[in-house]
Amino acid sequence: MGEEVVVVRNKQVILKDYVNGYVKSSDMVVTTDTTIRLELPKKDNGMILSKNLYLSCDPYMRNRMNKTVKGSYVDSFTPGLPISGYGVARILDSTHSDFEKGDLVWGFVNWEEYSLITDTKSLIKIRHIDDIPLSYYTGILGMAGLTAYVGFHDICSPKKGDFVYISAASGAVGQLVGQFAKLLGCYVVGSAGSKEKVKQRHVDLLKNKFGFDEAFNYKEEQDLDVALKRYFPNGIDIYFENVGGKILDDVLSNMRINGRIAVCGMISQYNLDRLEGIYNLHLLIFKRIRMQGFLVFDHYHLYPKFLDMIVPLIQEGKIVYIEDTVEALENAPAALAGLYTGKNVGKQVVAIAHE
Amino acid sequence: MGEEVVVVRNKQVILKDYVNGYVKSSDMVVTTDTTIRLELPKKDNGMILSKNLYLSCDPYMRNRMNKTVKGSYVDSFTPGLPISGYGVARILDSTHSDFEKGDLVWGFVNWEEYSLITDTKSLIKIRHIDDIPLSYYTGILGMAGLTAYVGFHDICSPKKGDFVYISAASGAVGQLVGQFAKLLGCYVVGSAGSKEKVKQRHVDLLKNKFGFDEAFNYKEEQDLDVALKRYFPNGIDIYFENVGGKILDDVLSNMRINGRIAVCGMISQYNLDRLEGIYNLHLLIFKRIRMQGFLVFDHYHLYPKFLDMIVPLIQEGKIVYIEDTVEALENAPAALAGLYTGKNVGKQVVAIAHE
Repeated sequence: MGEEVVVVRNKQVILKDYVNGYVKSSDMVVTTDTTIRLELPKKDNGMILSKNLYLSCDPYMRNRMNKTVKGSYVDSFTPGLPISGYGVARILDSTHSDFEKGDLVWGFVNWEEYSLITDTKSLIKIRHIDDIPLSYYTGILGMAGLTAYVGFHDICSPKKGDFVYISAASGAVGQLVGQFAKLLGCYVVGSAGSKEKVKQRHVDLLKNKFGFDEAFNYKEEQDLDVALKRYFPNGIDIYFENVGGKILDDVLSNMRINGRIAVCGMISQYNLDRLEGIYNLHLLIFKRIRMQGFLVFDHYHLYPKFLDMIVPLIQEGKIVYIEDTVEALENAPAALAGLYTGKNVGKQVVAIAHE
Repeated sequence: MGEEVVVVRNKQVILKDYVNGYVKSSDMVVTTDTTIRLELPKKDNGMILSKNLYLSCDPYMRNRMNKTVKGSYVDSFTPGLPISGYGVARILDSTHSDFEKGDLVWGFVNWEEYSLITDTKSLIKIRHIDDIPLSYYTGILGMAGLTAYVGFHDICSPKKGDFVYISAASGAVGQLVGQFAKLLGCYVVGSAGSKEKVKQRHVDLLKNKFGFDEAFNYKEEQDLDVALKRYFPNGIDIYFENVGGKILDDVLSNMRINGRIAVCGMISQYNLDRLEGIYNLHLLIFKRIRMQGFLVFDHYHLYPKFLDMIVPLIQEGKIVYIEDTVEALENAPAALAGLYTGKNVGKQVVAIAHE
């Protein structure tokens, strides 16, 4: 009768305090101070217990390290508590009618080995497909994939032959946007702004693996305006904006009439105390440019349709996806911090456990 | 047989040189150095001779006083020659099959008493309506009216109950946008940034004449962000942008989710050597804002439809239109320069001749 209850130490990534400037791995600490009981009390209605498997490092997370996220759609993290983000988890126990022990889910999880989850509404059940890695649900089959799909196909109004430029093109979203654009018959150029040692790998990936027409490292360019004129002598129809700041100004100068800019992210701004100004917005008028910000949360209803499209493309090898995986929660803070200096090559994932 | 040919001195507004900073009336000179023959040689095919009646002062004209109009859709003026812009003219003589002596037209005319026009493609024939002033074709029934119509109804995707903010709201376009928004059942606030002596008149006009819900002089506000929060405690759905610069930043902070910004003009930037930076563009993402630049030239096909709508509204008094008319070409340079410091109350018109 008296069953043994397993209680384990629960490794967690704790935010020490609100962050100023660039986030460093030392802004977080990995502790095993807390314990967790690996079984739910039977009376707890609606709660689930998860074993977290994969974590997603995403640019927007930097905003949550500020005391207030001005005008934003997410709350700040709480110093002293684990940070959170998109992840993949296995349900160990459930008192929620939608989830059973053994189910796999993706959605918001804390950066810790095991979680008690009361707010389950972000969780989506995974119908696991044998030949597709489970970690893909942190990216191509999760938020990043849907973001790329909605952002490109809905927001950019793309058509065959369009000239498409993608910044942060080797990131989780950018690599997919470029491939979607190629599948549609666009001319695609991507840039990445990576550190010295990995820069060639980025550019090679974009051209050879993802099939972009051209790729460059923007930190190598003396003058981005000159670079854009080299790759787009007739101008840019679609800019998929992941970076913001000075790049946006140079892109505005190189847009074509009736151009479209999907504003997905502005990673260059998230670590700055004072944001950079944009000076060329008057060109929106002269060039009749449409600039549209969007959040994937508004488009979750498209997720099933997106899965139907993307899974066969992955299985047939028509879409490839590169992950940059670090093993173990201990390495998670450095992986997240590295995102903002362009250290990652492909989607940055943290593997806590491979089950 | 030998008919007398009338040759007259032709008063002209000449641009002295390219302009730096704010345009001053002394950047132009009114001369009567040239003469013109008030009859066309019979052999001249396709040319017309016009007597110019009304001239329109429009914000975009400042851009044409720069040596290069970077990324623009119009050419620079040529120093030593008359400037040009929208106007209303009577055809005195024609060798063009579309126009006859006596016709009234609106379109691009030189700032001079009489013009020889070879490039007639901008000219639209006026079907004169007795109870509507001819000068209206420089504004409400011309470019400004169509701009307000297209910009508000097409670009802003307005719906009843939307909270609408209009900058430069007592100008040619702004006064109409506000009235269109009121007719649709929106809540409308306009601002003007006028000089001390006329500021109350602006605000009174906006509220009492045009029926705006609220109006303010933004130069009287210590902090525009505070002012916008006062008038829009729940935020702004639609911003009709005529001004640019710092106002745009404060508006971005006060936009609602899924807001729309129609970028019609940025008059605050046209006289600056160094443009102001915009710092809040990341809010496009958080708030899913659409920002769309447009030019009326792309929408000329809507002009007949627009006339069918607007003429009865004017005749029934459901739309009013305020003109600020200066008499005589001698006063035209000061009228144009005054546009950029908010001297005008309503649409700035120059009457060269009332026929």
